[in-house]
Amino acid sequence: MISRALPFKVRLVAYNPQGEKVVAIAAKMSRSRHGWEHHEDMSQEEIETWIRDSIIHGYWSVLEHSVYTFSIEGISRVASHQFVRHRIASYTQMSHRFAKPKDEFYRPVVPPSFKSPEAFEKVYQEYLRVLESGVPEEDARYVLPNGVNTNLVVTMNARELYNFFGLRLCTRAQWEIRAVAWLMLDEVKKVHPLLFKFAGPNCILHENFVRPEDDPVTLDQEKELVSSRCIEGVPRNGVWKCIRNSRMILEKIK
Amino acid sequence: MISRALPFKVRLVAYNPQGEKVVAIAAKMSRSRHGWEHHEDMSQEEIETWIRDSIIHGYWSVLEHSVYTFSIEGISRVASHQFVRHRIASYTQMSHRFAKPKDEFYRPVVPPSFKSPEAFEKVYQEYLRVLESGVPEEDARYVLPNGVNTNLVVTMNARELYNFFGLRLCTRAQWEIRAVAWLMLDEVKKVHPLLFKFAGPNCILHENFVRPEDDPVTLDQEKELVSSRCIEGVPRNGVWKCIRNSRMILEKIK
Amino acid sequence: MISRALPFKVRLVAYNPQGEKVVAIAAKMSRSRHGWEHHEDMSQEEIETWIRDSIIHGYWSVLEHSVYTFSIEGISRVASHQFVRHRIASYTQMSHRFAKPKDEFYRPVVPPSFKSPEAFEKVYQEYLRVLESGVPEEDARYVLPNGVNTNLVVTMNARELYNFFGLRLCTRAQWEIRAVAWLMLDEVKKVHPLLFKFAGPNCILHENFVRPEDDPVTLDQEKELVSSRCIEGVPRNGVWKCIRNSRMILEKIK
Amino acid sequence: MISRALPFKVRLVAYNPQGEKVVAIAAKMSRSRHGWEHHEDMSQEEIETWIRDSIIHGYWSVLEHSVYTFSIEGISRVASHQFVRHRIASYTQMSHRFAKPKDEFYRPVVPPSFKSPEAFEKVYQEYLRVLESGVPEEDARYVLPNGVNTNLVVTMNARELYNFFGLRLCTRAQWEIRAVAWLMLDEVKKVHPLLFKFAGPNCILHENFVRPEDDPVTLDQEKELVSSRCIEGVPRNGVWKCIRNSRMILEKIK
Repeated sequence: MISRALPFKVRLVAYNPQGEKVVAIAAKMSRSRHGWEHHEDMSQEEIETWIRDSIIHGYWSVLEHSVYTFSIEGISRVASHQFVRHRIASYTQMSHRFAKPKDEFYRPVVPPSFKSPEAFEKVYQEYLRVLESGVPEEDARYVLPNGVNTNLVVTMNARELYNFFGLRLCTRAQWEIRAVAWLMLDEVKKVHPLLFKFAGPNCILHENFVRPEDDPVTLDQEKELVSSRCIEGVPRNGVWKCIRNSRMILEKIK
Repeated sequence: MISRALPFKVRLVAYNPQGEKVVAIAAKMSRSRHGWEHHEDMSQEEIETWIRDSIIHGYWSVLEHSVYTFSIEGISRVASHQFVRHRIASYTQMSHRFAKPKDEFYRPVVPPSFKSPEAFEKVYQEYLRVLESGVPEEDARYVLPNGVNTNLVVTMNARELYNFFGLRLCTRAQWEIRAVAWLMLDEVKKVHPLLFKFAGPNCILHENFVRPEDDPVTLDQEKELVSSRCIEGVPRNGVWKCIRNSRMILEKIK
Repeated sequence: MISRALPFKVRLVAYNPQGEKVVAIAAKMSRSRHGWEHHEDMSQEEIETWIRDSIIHGYWSVLEHSVYTFSIEGISRVASHQFVRHRIASYTQMSHRFAKPKDEFYRPVVPPSFKSPEAFEKVYQEYLRVLESGVPEEDARYVLPNGVNTNLVVTMNARELYNFFGLRLCTRAQWEIRAVAWLMLDEVKKVHPLLFKFAGPNCILHENFVRPEDDPVTLDQEKELVSSRCIEGVPRNGVWKCIRNSRMILEKIK
Repeated sequence: MISRALPFKVRLVAYNPQGEKVVAIAAKMSRSRHGWEHHEDMSQEEIETWIRDSIIHGYWSVLEHSVYTFSIEGISRVASHQFVRHRIASYTQMSHRFAKPKDEFYRPVVPPSFKSPEAFEKVYQEYLRVLESGVPEEDARYVLPNGVNTNLVVTMNARELYNFFGLRLCTRAQWEIRAVAWLMLDEVKKVHPLLFKFAGPNCILHENFVRPEDDPVTLDQEKELVSSRCIEGVPRNGVWKCIRNSRMILEKIK
């Protein structure tokens, strides 16, 4: 039986615990005549200031020095195909040419809008019939549904994550990759709260380019916006509700 | 009825007719104190020499100045997913969120190893049932087969094309993207024969790094190799046959 | 004698005249089930609409399909070093290892703030002395001034140009690369006015993310801004003056 | 007094100690139906095998999951300009617009071929005179020599490091960036000997594409080559000597 419970899992499997400090030292070195060693005993307050100032003034390149590897398991090939369109990242994907998603490994992603997973079972029967007829696995998978599960190892730096979150936390992103993005944000905020404090969908990102710099906005506290609309066309007074809706996907798929 | 004839089409839709000259002038300018104008009336012979020398000595960066746009239509999402893994390129893909592959637009790629396209018709029936049950298109497509047809606009420069051909003309590449790659090679060779003279699968590419430079090898003329094996493990005396097999996919899918 | 007249020259040497149409067709194909041919006789009005909508809604990736090659001659190595930091681009640079900037080829960029070019002459004398002492050219150039002239062939797509202009047309960019950027903008606007209509420094770029979408702003017409500041901190009512100042560099270096 | 001792320092300041395991697990996951957790207790032997097989068969993408940050201090702007041409990397550079290389911070790189550092002192006097005449620092630096010292924070993944080493460990690379490359190789070999076992100049890299796969070559043990020449034209029997010469730069600059 195909489960309705959504199978995907997002796990941060590698990162540098010193990543926030690395970013802050790099930012400071661009303004300093001293080498790395000279800056190495930077205080937590100073780290926070350098990171904040870099982000608020769009000095994004220093964020590239902190890098994160995720294991994203059980997402559909719909989502993985969207994911790998982000080119400034590194990917290793489970190959259906070599690893047959059969038996207990066939766990397609069933969208919440489906009343039953029946269609996915029927398609699976076709897949089995094709395999039995002697078609090799690398061809038989042409019959597998787009919702079939796959695993992806992804490495992205903090700058690209800001860009990824900007696009994929937005309600306009498809629900599945959106759910993955919110889970990824939770993961990186746990380990590097300073670096990801200002991350959010593009409405929030753009707002911080145009509002008073001593009063930036974060996802944690709703403030009136300067922007008269988000880039997708949602007017100022609909933005916060839109963001809350977006995150609600995590409730729907539990 | 789903056709067995393979539906995909590869077409070079944009490129700079002066691309070979642009590459040659750029190569020459790196060694010269003069500006562009000074080199503009370069002879065809000189163009050929600068291109050849750049490739034979691995001076690949100058090849980036000639850029090609292809419309690749009717390939499967298996192939498009593999394609977009090449990150040094630009893509626009037909969105199944907004453009339903229904009726005459449902033309899945049926691998030659399939005895009949029946499985694809059965899956299509499931897709229709799901749509009728009220599931929105962006979710219904989770049931569509991986073989479902899609269109892709791809822009790549000549250097990245060399890399793409190196990997995707190889017998180890899946047959579909391999067929696309051979068709793309035919297209660019027609318009820029000097630039793509030395293109081929990695066995050929690597061979030209290690054999006498006054005797490079091309796909058009089989010569004894210096390499004792290709990077995938095919021994020296099996390489040419392997290349011929690879290209034969174009016969199989006609 | 070293001239005070600024020596640099910016020339668009290659691009696809059909670039705007290519971008518009790609944008349309992402929403369509038809192939390239079907869209090929697109009207000028439709081209304009697809381009405008893509830019206003941040659908930047389609702009990558139109690509531009510039020959930038006589800039300093200060500017070329800044230039090549833009990584999504292709470069070929005149090599001072192989092309000595001697005699009439020594034409350093003298900043307008210098009262006389004397210092550059003195440094040149040191360079000659070092060469005469038998130091090979690739080492002798360590004595050449950072202002020494170099040539660069640059290929960038329209999306990256928007990003480049966003950063380098800004008053905060150094005057030399800023002048180069304004000249590049003039070049591309001449050939593709639709594609570059909304290009400008980041203040303008960001403003178009947050203001009413039916009333975008361009460099040609000053309108009141929604943004309360630019990303560099200039307040709303100082932005237009700041942009006018930025462009004035072209007058100063004539 | 300007010192003849070469001032540059190369230090690995951040990396993931688990990087080799991360690469090996990613490689394995592409062939497996299991998730990350299942593979986490991989033995050292298995890690070695997956890394070796990935490299020998050119499965380079998995190497991108291990990332390294270097602080490179005291190199010339000749070298930093060459360095940043490697586009698949992240950079933060000391800005001479904001950090004046004056007094004890003026430590230009004096090539070993110079009989004396006198020329660099003369140029420095010109720089001081220009500063005193009221020219702002961002312009005054146009007079500074190309050999002037700068600092660079660089982040690169293991795949790009293989590419960087391929080009920059080669005798054809300029001596300064070559010395930096050999020092970087020493740093990463210390912490990840399995991952960088097969790194070397392009002659070695290409050789491992074409020789028997059970007998790969490393820098530590000279073996007869299959390649009849390196890509730069050095014939088979000159290659090992050429590599030894290349590394000797580290002795010359001590």
